[in-house]
Amino acid sequence: MSGSTFGKCFQVSTWGESHGPALGVVIQGCPPGIELDESVIQKSLDKRKPGHGVASTKRKEPDIPEIMSGIFEGKTTGTPISIMIRNHDAKSRDYSDIASLFRPGHGDFTYHAKYGIRDYRGGGRASARETAARVAAGAVAEAFLRQIGHNISVDSMTVALGGIWIEKKDFAFAASNSFECPDQNALGKIEKRIDEVRKSGDSLGGVLEITARNVPAGLGEPVFDKLDADIAKAMMSIGAVKAVEIGSGCEAAVKTGFDNNDQITPSGFESNNCGGILAGISNGDDIVVRVHVKPIPSILKEQKTVDDKGNPCVLSTRGRHDICAIPRINPVCRAMLYLVIADHVLRQKAISPQKS
Amino acid sequence: MSGSTFGKCFQVSTWGESHGPALGVVIQGCPPGIELDESVIQKSLDKRKPGHGVASTKRKEPDIPEIMSGIFEGKTTGTPISIMIRNHDAKSRDYSDIASLFRPGHGDFTYHAKYGIRDYRGGGRASARETAARVAAGAVAEAFLRQIGHNISVDSMTVALGGIWIEKKDFAFAASNSFECPDQNALGKIEKRIDEVRKSGDSLGGVLEITARNVPAGLGEPVFDKLDADIAKAMMSIGAVKAVEIGSGCEAAVKTGFDNNDQITPSGFESNNCGGILAGISNGDDIVVRVHVKPIPSILKEQKTVDDKGNPCVLSTRGRHDICAIPRINPVCRAMLYLVIADHVLRQKAISPQKS
Amino acid sequence: MSGSTFGKCFQVSTWGESHGPALGVVIQGCPPGIELDESVIQKSLDKRKPGHGVASTKRKEPDIPEIMSGIFEGKTTGTPISIMIRNHDAKSRDYSDIASLFRPGHGDFTYHAKYGIRDYRGGGRASARETAARVAAGAVAEAFLRQIGHNISVDSMTVALGGIWIEKKDFAFAASNSFECPDQNALGKIEKRIDEVRKSGDSLGGVLEITARNVPAGLGEPVFDKLDADIAKAMMSIGAVKAVEIGSGCEAAVKTGFDNNDQITPSGFESNNCGGILAGISNGDDIVVRVHVKPIPSILKEQKTVDDKGNPCVLSTRGRHDICAIPRINPVCRAMLYLVIADHVLRQKAISPQKS
Amino acid sequence: MSGSTFGKCFQVSTWGESHGPALGVVIQGCPPGIELDESVIQKSLDKRKPGHGVASTKRKEPDIPEIMSGIFEGKTTGTPISIMIRNHDAKSRDYSDIASLFRPGHGDFTYHAKYGIRDYRGGGRASARETAARVAAGAVAEAFLRQIGHNISVDSMTVALGGIWIEKKDFAFAASNSFECPDQNALGKIEKRIDEVRKSGDSLGGVLEITARNVPAGLGEPVFDKLDADIAKAMMSIGAVKAVEIGSGCEAAVKTGFDNNDQITPSGFESNNCGGILAGISNGDDIVVRVHVKPIPSILKEQKTVDDKGNPCVLSTRGRHDICAIPRINPVCRAMLYLVIADHVLRQKAISPQKS
Repeated sequence: MSGSTFGKCFQVSTWGESHGPALGVVIQGCPPGIELDESVIQKSLDKRKPGHGVASTKRKEPDIPEIMSGIFEGKTTGTPISIMIRNHDAKSRDYSDIASLFRPGHGDFTYHAKYGIRDYRGGGRASARETAARVAAGAVAEAFLRQIGHNISVDSMTVALGGIWIEKKDFAFAASNSFECPDQNALGKIEKRIDEVRKSGDSLGGVLEITARNVPAGLGEPVFDKLDADIAKAMMSIGAVKAVEIGSGCEAAVKTGFDNNDQITPSGFESNNCGGILAGISNGDDIVVRVHVKPIPSILKEQKTVDDKGNPCVLSTRGRHDICAIPRINPVCRAMLYLVIADHVLRQKAISPQKS
Repeated sequence: MSGSTFGKCFQVSTWGESHGPALGVVIQGCPPGIELDESVIQKSLDKRKPGHGVASTKRKEPDIPEIMSGIFEGKTTGTPISIMIRNHDAKSRDYSDIASLFRPGHGDFTYHAKYGIRDYRGGGRASARETAARVAAGAVAEAFLRQIGHNISVDSMTVALGGIWIEKKDFAFAASNSFECPDQNALGKIEKRIDEVRKSGDSLGGVLEITARNVPAGLGEPVFDKLDADIAKAMMSIGAVKAVEIGSGCEAAVKTGFDNNDQITPSGFESNNCGGILAGISNGDDIVVRVHVKPIPSILKEQKTVDDKGNPCVLSTRGRHDICAIPRINPVCRAMLYLVIADHVLRQKAISPQKS
Repeated sequence: MSGSTFGKCFQVSTWGESHGPALGVVIQGCPPGIELDESVIQKSLDKRKPGHGVASTKRKEPDIPEIMSGIFEGKTTGTPISIMIRNHDAKSRDYSDIASLFRPGHGDFTYHAKYGIRDYRGGGRASARETAARVAAGAVAEAFLRQIGHNISVDSMTVALGGIWIEKKDFAFAASNSFECPDQNALGKIEKRIDEVRKSGDSLGGVLEITARNVPAGLGEPVFDKLDADIAKAMMSIGAVKAVEIGSGCEAAVKTGFDNNDQITPSGFESNNCGGILAGISNGDDIVVRVHVKPIPSILKEQKTVDDKGNPCVLSTRGRHDICAIPRINPVCRAMLYLVIADHVLRQKAISPQKS
Repeated sequence: MSGSTFGKCFQVSTWGESHGPALGVVIQGCPPGIELDESVIQKSLDKRKPGHGVASTKRKEPDIPEIMSGIFEGKTTGTPISIMIRNHDAKSRDYSDIASLFRPGHGDFTYHAKYGIRDYRGGGRASARETAARVAAGAVAEAFLRQIGHNISVDSMTVALGGIWIEKKDFAFAASNSFECPDQNALGKIEKRIDEVRKSGDSLGGVLEITARNVPAGLGEPVFDKLDADIAKAMMSIGAVKAVEIGSGCEAAVKTGFDNNDQITPSGFESNNCGGILAGISNGDDIVVRVHVKPIPSILKEQKTVDDKGNPCVLSTRGRHDICAIPRINPVCRAMLYLVIADHVLRQKAISPQKS
């Protein structure tokens, strides 16, 4: 079925494998009249590309978006927007060594179990490369939201990596480093930790915090398509994410009701434990989401596995790999939050009590 | 739009307000030939009803399911199954005191912002009473899954309440107490904590762990309708849930790749940090989910709020209220997991590589 | 799957069998603030009920709608509207004589082939009784459309019955007779034809024309959810309908382009061969639809059939039956057109280029 | 919203404008393991391309499909199949003469009314060129259906053109001419009629009959997603189609019940007035559909229209244009029927009473 489609009104369908000719996305429901060109999308894609940070590989992977439809004279027309990104490494190395192996922590085994066939080159559809299409779509959602006048914006930052938590939030500093880490002191420790782990042939995970500002009250559709439910799905659909929190999140479970409730005054809510969402509907405060990202499963250390005939094997990933998904997953999380909000902005227009 | 519908193949649409004449659910896509009657649903509903535990109110709320369609001679026919549960307290007390107030922690403000009108009696659609329809639907999903032969079952238990965590898992004990708490020692502390908090007019949250067993490998649809993504949405759509973890969850973010990967041997996965899901597809191991539940927002302590004209007010909830949602939220979480699995079992049938 | 759901924004899900306890509909997406009560729905249902016309049976079937949710103090709240209609003949006659027979022209054989089980009492889900839920939903769509200010209205009339075509359109006269036939002369012939056919134990079909007025230009979503495509589906989903035409319809195929094109002047389109829809989008003119209705398959004449073991049998329907579906199918067609338009009004709000 | 998506289980989303860089389709839900390559798609596209028949233009428009994803080593993998077709005439002539005019019979006015902006080059999204993507998708559905073993096939033929009806069905002859007309005598008259109309600068419509053979009984989902309802939508979503009939179609409305019912014997149905569908579910007989196609609206004759400021103008289309859509619309209708059947085959797998 339509497992590669997200959203009901602002609806995106992605396609493409890691080592096929290209990947892309078709966006339906974007209203007409939105100014859009490739440069807007390129800007977001550039933030996702492998950087020069200590956690990244040195591979070059220039992601150039091509808009194939839905734009006329620089504006959206209301028809489907098709964006394609060519894969430049498509005819890459020999994958025969892992073609029949199930890499631990990857989808090799489960894709095999589900489909009985899998494109093993670079992970195929399960590759993190798939998120490039999400980022492209998120850029369109961002452009749409920026142009409808609420000044909605989504930021994110790394709040923990390899078990090291930030202790302050210096947004200017976060913007200056590829980890989008807002604490210079913590970043120093993180880089040290990454170096150690790299040497041991292992990898690290971390925690991101994503914040949407200026989201109007009233978005979200009870009882299943609640704004937080859709955000949880959006975030958990990112391969490496294993936990999602909204507002006070896990902390909510240890607070009392009095401490967790956000009391209300004529000037607004006194706190934001709810993370900007009450009963599944935005309340006008910042929407605050935290995602917990597992360490990258491809490691140099030897691991036990089996091949597709069930024979035991030892796997040691060769070549250069990212040590941590964090630097690159920030723009993906932002894209997903933009997509959720754009979808619910349109859904709210449809149900709006105003006369049409 | 269709915010009250969940699932694509096994699809449920709930309706009803806390104090309307009834609430209910329409289930589409349940295959024909499944044995089903009201007693099956009643059994699940009974587990959700206000118990006699220390955290619960003494209110009586007999939830009697009536099957209105889709069953013939004790079996499903493949047509929509409509289940209705009458509200017995429909014509209850005078709500004029809170009709114009926005209760902190509740959806009063956001429903007002979204719809411009709201049924304020008992929370209307935002009431936890809505979950009775989910539990009824979950009972149908459970019956379907039980009868197709995989022996799929979903259990859940309380692993923390009011900040007190369990230290052992005694399933027999969990089945014996209304908190579904598997640690007798922890339960003692929890009951004490609840007593204290009740006296102070406050409330508590907690953490549940839900486990699905015997789920076949291959369920889940990349890249957005991943099994974990749909579970995250399902759980976060429950009003009180503020965080969802899969497998090692938040812990995954502090582990190294080597420690977090589940190595594979001819006899299976050596660990289950992935929580039974790899790349969004079930791997045949137990599916393990944890949800963090906020404290009930209705408390006796005075709180600041405003009315719908923006005037400041003080709110003190009267009457008896639950201190903690935990005892009653267990069956709701189980129902949601049954629904997700039933949906993906059917989705997998549709995409199955087998000849039709 | 969700075969009993129609519409994407104004979305209805019907349930119920002919001889179950009740049938009903859940409506999602109806905007809040619409005035609605049972009397509005009753009015539409009354037009569908078996009349006293010569083509109808004398059976009594009082359809009383009960609104179970979604209305508060006389207005829609934006939450799902659940409407239930009790079946009063539920525990009716002995059906054992046809329990194992496949009636020609009915869904007995195909339901059996599809589901392997069927509720044979009165046709079960395949009964025309199912359309009562559509009419109830259509009444809600009509109320919504009336209250948003475009003055959208849907009329229909019988333009042929038993091969006898009308020759003039006297709307006042159409409103005065149960056939909704606008030509007194034709009606005389029709009634005579019906009498003849009744005596021979046979039945008749006919043709309806449904017209929607004051539909704003801009409704419909290319390329698949075109307004005419959705109308075609809506009409063809009514059991007895075997053909659907839009505007000049079948005639369009014999005209030249010059004759079929609707030329445009500053005061509007010079003709309406397109039936108010160009390229799948409404153009502001009347939407004109014709449906061709097959004769009722239940007849007194003996027919050949088989039982569910493949044995040949002779079937002769006993009891009183309608001779023609026409008088009762008019309100169903109107309801379906109201539903399509309401859905596309909301869809257009979502995609509207206006700032939100 | 998602107006460019068709199907629920075998789901296609098309994109692209007549004069953009390309058009294409993303197919979700095609089961894995189906053999597929570009040649299969090319074969269907070739049947749609402008032929050398008397009704066609001489324009060259080589439609070359490129499979961008979802295929690995010659087989579908179960992931989205993306197919792209480049537009070779993208940078074509100057359209400024019609940029501000609303061509009668086209979607110019309605796209303008709906979106406030439109890609006027060659009709943009409303161009018949969009159907190339449908044909590509249909070829995939055909391949899927052929490989699952029922031997399902869809044929179509021209049964009328310019008011001239065929009188015999010689399938071999139909396969030999670009009109897919099965009657040599009728074809002679048709060609003559086309010549006359071409000289007068006008255009013609016609009627097609599409037949699906070997469709198993049991496909279709009451009560809205009936097989005939989905077929009606599929056909009516083709721009030029103004009427759709199933089985006896319009004739059903003038027959008696006895004559229209298909009586049943141990060896099958005695007739096929129902067109292979009873109560919305296939009965195993041929599915027979007729569509009525309007004449092409682009004609050389002068027509009245207005510009986007409401000023009256005279329009005379220049250049070579097709006289009749018929030769090219046959493969589009076949594609749509393949898509509907493929979708319902998968939907039936999901609801199948068999154990999974």
